[in-house]
Amino acid sequence: MQSVTGSATREIFKLLSKPEIISFAGGLPANECLPTEAVARISNELLVSAEGKAILQYGTTEGVATLRTELVKYATSEGLKATDSELMVLSGGQQGIDLFIKTFCNKGDVVLVENPTFLAFLQVASSYGARCVGVKSDDKGLDITDLEAKIKEYKPKALYVVPTFSNPTGKTYTAERRKAICEVTAKYGIMVLEDDPYSRLRWTGDRVSPLKTFDKTGNVVYVTSFSKLISPGLRVGFCIGEEEVIRKMTIGKQCADLHTSNLSQAIVREFLRGGLLEPHIKKAVPIYQKRAKTMLDCLAEYMPKNFEYTKPEGGLFVWGEFKDKTNTVQKFEQAITNNVAYIQGQVFYADSSGLNTLRLNFSNADPEKIERGVKALGKIFGK
Amino acid sequence: MQSVTGSATREIFKLLSKPEIISFAGGLPANECLPTEAVARISNELLVSAEGKAILQYGTTEGVATLRTELVKYATSEGLKATDSELMVLSGGQQGIDLFIKTFCNKGDVVLVENPTFLAFLQVASSYGARCVGVKSDDKGLDITDLEAKIKEYKPKALYVVPTFSNPTGKTYTAERRKAICEVTAKYGIMVLEDDPYSRLRWTGDRVSPLKTFDKTGNVVYVTSFSKLISPGLRVGFCIGEEEVIRKMTIGKQCADLHTSNLSQAIVREFLRGGLLEPHIKKAVPIYQKRAKTMLDCLAEYMPKNFEYTKPEGGLFVWGEFKDKTNTVQKFEQAITNNVAYIQGQVFYADSSGLNTLRLNFSNADPEKIERGVKALGKIFGK
Repeated sequence: MQSVTGSATREIFKLLSKPEIISFAGGLPANECLPTEAVARISNELLVSAEGKAILQYGTTEGVATLRTELVKYATSEGLKATDSELMVLSGGQQGIDLFIKTFCNKGDVVLVENPTFLAFLQVASSYGARCVGVKSDDKGLDITDLEAKIKEYKPKALYVVPTFSNPTGKTYTAERRKAICEVTAKYGIMVLEDDPYSRLRWTGDRVSPLKTFDKTGNVVYVTSFSKLISPGLRVGFCIGEEEVIRKMTIGKQCADLHTSNLSQAIVREFLRGGLLEPHIKKAVPIYQKRAKTMLDCLAEYMPKNFEYTKPEGGLFVWGEFKDKTNTVQKFEQAITNNVAYIQGQVFYADSSGLNTLRLNFSNADPEKIERGVKALGKIFGK
Repeated sequence: MQSVTGSATREIFKLLSKPEIISFAGGLPANECLPTEAVARISNELLVSAEGKAILQYGTTEGVATLRTELVKYATSEGLKATDSELMVLSGGQQGIDLFIKTFCNKGDVVLVENPTFLAFLQVASSYGARCVGVKSDDKGLDITDLEAKIKEYKPKALYVVPTFSNPTGKTYTAERRKAICEVTAKYGIMVLEDDPYSRLRWTGDRVSPLKTFDKTGNVVYVTSFSKLISPGLRVGFCIGEEEVIRKMTIGKQCADLHTSNLSQAIVREFLRGGLLEPHIKKAVPIYQKRAKTMLDCLAEYMPKNFEYTKPEGGLFVWGEFKDKTNTVQKFEQAITNNVAYIQGQVFYADSSGLNTLRLNFSNADPEKIERGVKALGKIFGK
């Protein structure tokens, strides 16, 4: 734990609590998309039903059996084959990352990541003494030549990727790259953790199958979450892997929190079983699409010419890069003074590079605020 | 993780699912004490209130601020002084154990425990490569001479204790022993984890203040849970420690699950804020008292003379010891065949001794079942 020095995500959440700040820093779903009324009704019905006592009693580490049944069906509809013993419930996707590293990496082990990658992954890996090494990527995904070179050089235990609407870049790997990642990691016996919290939030372009669907040797662990689809506050996710992998991660979870809140699990199950999830996603996606469009339009209008940025087809994030020596770490204080927040891209780099980059989240501010915020950024970064 | 071989708790939960088994093996609260109607009403009210969106949105790692305020008051009423920054919410008491070990122990470190101690603690310590060494105890608590000798011999990082209605023994440490434990651990700079999930379930005898109240140097971390007071299925506990200790454990929790279910947290807060907790405990305690009395009466009637057992003043467990070479591990299969389950005491020993011991839980079976179960045990162990 000594190596975990910063706590950027936590500090970000604290910043968000100042009401005057327009925050593009978080990764929060839109409040408009949080189904309070449905959850209120479901909770009430569940607790007064014959199942009420079981919900408040201890549960099993693998998760509520009836939820697991629904998750197997849901996974199948996503093209992911999984039997009951190849799937476990998680207390949010974050727990999947934690258990994966805890279970499969020892102190000093190398884990390959895309450079840049999800900040919290770097923190978890660091907390277990694992060392993250960045792999190059382009618009189609990880650079396979560099991946193989890094595998040979570092003999890593695992590779971590967010292949669809990546955090932080918003980019999506092509099917060809996914297939190639599976092949090269299988060839060298490297485990892969595929983190997929955003793929259902797609408003344009063609769906790409999860990397796990290209996995022929069982070396890929797939983790996803209902945080962006139903509610992050309930803390429910799940993961899929080989039976032996899931068995080991279940022992890890038993130590960590015994099991996920049964009430949260039963609520998610009712969303799946009652057919509430799909219409809910259908209503949410256009909200995110509109916010993304507003942000991209405003970036074109207000940001300087030397600022290049991704145009995601879904998810929550736009990634920006200054083509000069603009330093987003140095500019951050000025942004806060002007009541706008972003994340300095540097924190997403395994090698602390990326001083000229930043991540912008568009999901938790309405279009009017997005415009005001990007306008403020334009002034700070000097259009 | 490689060192975590067994998974006794998990296997026990699976056993419990067979309806014909009378189980004294678990540590489940009585179903009669699970407040389904109150939780149904509270959840519904919370989610349709102005707070609904915040409950379903991401929260902070330390816990919901309004819950933390109530927890500070609750802790104060238990004699525990804590400021807001000396307290954090946990996803159940189990998480407190996990974060404590993860934060303060490295691979190869020694942790002292009472011999026998809570099985899950042994598993968590093992999962991080820490080595547990048992300390002798008697009816008043840990043997202070042996504790100091073991500190000198093993130079441990920490001591773990369950001083009130201990799991597995049901015993309670005297105030004098608590004070002495604080003094000797402070003298050698050893951290202490005090696990206190059962102390509110007292039906007779005088209350003893938490060990943490005797802590003069800040080396004690106190962890408790609402699992036995409201509901284990909601997964809410909290811990108290020095500000710097809590800060470190919060970073650990951020990596582990980001935060505890906001809905679970808000439900517990309403139990505290609305004054529901104390009357609920007052109603629950006599139920446990009756079950304990039934079990003790039946043990006196049906078990052989060479079986000695504790007479707890609260909590969930009776601990038994055969004064001959009776082997409870060997007898276990016969017990299951006769539809009664206990836990072999051996699993609670850091040194795998205690082959002649067993733990009996009385909280999750009604008096009629308790009588039938103990009668079956009497036959198996040959009165």
